[in-house]
Amino acid sequence: MYNPNDPKLKSWVSVESTSDFPIQNLPFGVFQKNDKVAVGVAIGSMVLDLSLLWKEGFFSEIFPSQEENIFAHSSLNAFMNCGKEIWQKTRTRISQLLEAGSSELHDHAVKEEALVTLDEVKMLLPIKVGNFVDFYSSIEHATNIGSMFRPDNPLMPNWRHLPVGYNGRASSVIPSGTPIKRPKGQTKADDAENPTFGPSRLFDMELEMGFIIGKGNDLGSSISTKDAPDHVFGMVLLNDWSSRDIQKWEYVPLGPFLGKSFATSISPWVVTLDALEPFLVDGPTQEPAVLPHLQYEGKGNYDIHLEAYLQGEKMEASERITKTNFRLMYWNMQQQLAHQTSNGTNTQAGDLYGSGTVSGTTPDSLGSFLELSWRGTRPLKFPNGEERKFIQDNDTITLKGWCQGEGYRVGFGECSGKVLAAD
Amino acid sequence: MYNPNDPKLKSWVSVESTSDFPIQNLPFGVFQKNDKVAVGVAIGSMVLDLSLLWKEGFFSEIFPSQEENIFAHSSLNAFMNCGKEIWQKTRTRISQLLEAGSSELHDHAVKEEALVTLDEVKMLLPIKVGNFVDFYSSIEHATNIGSMFRPDNPLMPNWRHLPVGYNGRASSVIPSGTPIKRPKGQTKADDAENPTFGPSRLFDMELEMGFIIGKGNDLGSSISTKDAPDHVFGMVLLNDWSSRDIQKWEYVPLGPFLGKSFATSISPWVVTLDALEPFLVDGPTQEPAVLPHLQYEGKGNYDIHLEAYLQGEKMEASERITKTNFRLMYWNMQQQLAHQTSNGTNTQAGDLYGSGTVSGTTPDSLGSFLELSWRGTRPLKFPNGEERKFIQDNDTITLKGWCQGEGYRVGFGECSGKVLAAD
Repeated sequence: MYNPNDPKLKSWVSVESTSDFPIQNLPFGVFQKNDKVAVGVAIGSMVLDLSLLWKEGFFSEIFPSQEENIFAHSSLNAFMNCGKEIWQKTRTRISQLLEAGSSELHDHAVKEEALVTLDEVKMLLPIKVGNFVDFYSSIEHATNIGSMFRPDNPLMPNWRHLPVGYNGRASSVIPSGTPIKRPKGQTKADDAENPTFGPSRLFDMELEMGFIIGKGNDLGSSISTKDAPDHVFGMVLLNDWSSRDIQKWEYVPLGPFLGKSFATSISPWVVTLDALEPFLVDGPTQEPAVLPHLQYEGKGNYDIHLEAYLQGEKMEASERITKTNFRLMYWNMQQQLAHQTSNGTNTQAGDLYGSGTVSGTTPDSLGSFLELSWRGTRPLKFPNGEERKFIQDNDTITLKGWCQGEGYRVGFGECSGKVLAAD
Repeated sequence: MYNPNDPKLKSWVSVESTSDFPIQNLPFGVFQKNDKVAVGVAIGSMVLDLSLLWKEGFFSEIFPSQEENIFAHSSLNAFMNCGKEIWQKTRTRISQLLEAGSSELHDHAVKEEALVTLDEVKMLLPIKVGNFVDFYSSIEHATNIGSMFRPDNPLMPNWRHLPVGYNGRASSVIPSGTPIKRPKGQTKADDAENPTFGPSRLFDMELEMGFIIGKGNDLGSSISTKDAPDHVFGMVLLNDWSSRDIQKWEYVPLGPFLGKSFATSISPWVVTLDALEPFLVDGPTQEPAVLPHLQYEGKGNYDIHLEAYLQGEKMEASERITKTNFRLMYWNMQQQLAHQTSNGTNTQAGDLYGSGTVSGTTPDSLGSFLELSWRGTRPLKFPNGEERKFIQDNDTITLKGWCQGEGYRVGFGECSGKVLAAD
């Protein structure tokens, strides 16, 4: 049987060995070229326009009863809602069309129009986000944050028993490249009697991964850890922009709200769980043992290298500020989804889940400025002499992530955003 | 100029004086009759099918450039997105068509098909919910809850400075009449070492009002208290079903999540802000004074009588368990919306906002069982001898709400839900 993850596969489209998008990846996204918006797949430095391939009948065996062009959409939601079998057949079909030696697309007249360079297109938000949930599942991150405020007891009693999370704001999920205006908000200094309103002073990032529901469940039902991978279409990089001063004043007792809701950036290419399958690794031991509905079999984590970069307007280059790995996460996606639906909550194609900030164990592997500068007490130093305790206006933050195969990468591209001054 | 709120108006459709839906109301909803789904307006015990009136050209002057039937939709979102001027013109037009003495619709052939009784239709969720935010804006409720856990200091320091709120779950907002399965979840008894998983034992309701965004704002912009009423289409009754034992174990530090996300019920008829305008009243004095962006002019509250009822399966009738009024709310809608968008968060047609539990100052005016039974210490007694500390399986909870005019009511109908046993 054809294996689209075979490391030996090559494409007739040229792909550099450091490219995030070899034939083993084939991530899905939504692009705009001039007035046209459609679903595409990335291959090397090109985008393959699936809506044109659909028109030519390339997918007619996979969607025999589907009359409307499922790739002539402004989001992946309709395609994702078809379910895992269709996702897999489609990815396999595209892989076969792009495989070196295959002539069906290579020699077809549509090729010239259907393959465009990434430079020619604008990548849009790939999904219509129905609901956004954000977890808090890195034990290193939770311990760091907790130890700043409760040195003797950094982890809350519930933390090792369930993946702590909260509902975020869906409307302000934006694609990489969209600038972020520094939010205004109400904050109160520790020594002030009353709060004031103005631009946030402690503007932060959170380096996260996001996963996306492809096929949901009905209200009143739950998704088991075993079935969770059948519901998850794929993953993206996610920057959960955070205003620490707004958050601090508002969050007791109902949790983060305006400190987070102004913007969440995601990378535009959704890497399928199928493409990530070769990079599954064992998760950390969970102690104490979790309750039965949160137990899982097999490998639960993914070996995804993660980095974040900062470039200020006076800096000549983008400087790496952290380097970590997604494999460290204490709670995995299966557990997060099983927990979140354990009370019967329904999910829908396009629902987005943030992992929580991914932090490592060393000072240069932390996923937020709150940790990197340790509440501003140890500023980050940059080659041009500048320092940062938190993010300044006109700084651009870029997240990168990839799985390293032998001689190729399955990567996520970039999740980038420039912070603009408040009005 | 024609005033659709004129108390003297009568309709040629017969309306009882105790009806929630006189000609002064004209709430919008989405109904299903056989296979047909369309937008309608309630009048007395009838539904007026607006999609049929559209077909006959009754609205052609209001929507001169709109070709598609905006009322042949399964939600109000498209209509709401047209903006306040269109909402007002449409309501005025419907009022004129239904006014006693008006012959245009009364004598038209479409009347027989367009006016159907409420018994013949099933009311659906009136909006496609994009985002759901829930506030905590009754000072009586917040003080009650706070005093159970912190007797000396019931209100948090931020409470009088901003309308505390959090993001809820949009996917599980359901229309009145949909049964609610008791959620399962993780809970921990105070004296237990470890949590367990099973059906929630402390199942509660929250008597709230909801408001709905008709026309949103762009990311990066904010809505002022003055402009807020132009963005709000209307209001509904809202029951924020809550599992107190799940909530207690999960909510520190990121707020309510699975204790609330399994279901939120709303009433199916959206009463427009225009219909509520005669019932505006002064809000409570806010002390200390709020920051400038939360200040407002004029009347900010609405005089809406609210009641909740319980009927167990062995009870012959639905028994009133509380009676309160929406006018008590400390924070009003203008302030809530101004606060929530003050950081630049965008809103969209169909966004839903819960007021927070509406509680009065007396023991029989509280909006939740947590307060009514004071954490289970004073059970509610019912005529058939039964008691309730919290809601039991097969109990039906019904919320009612109305504004009392002279000789007529502008009402919200009912928001009802039966609690089923967990699987």
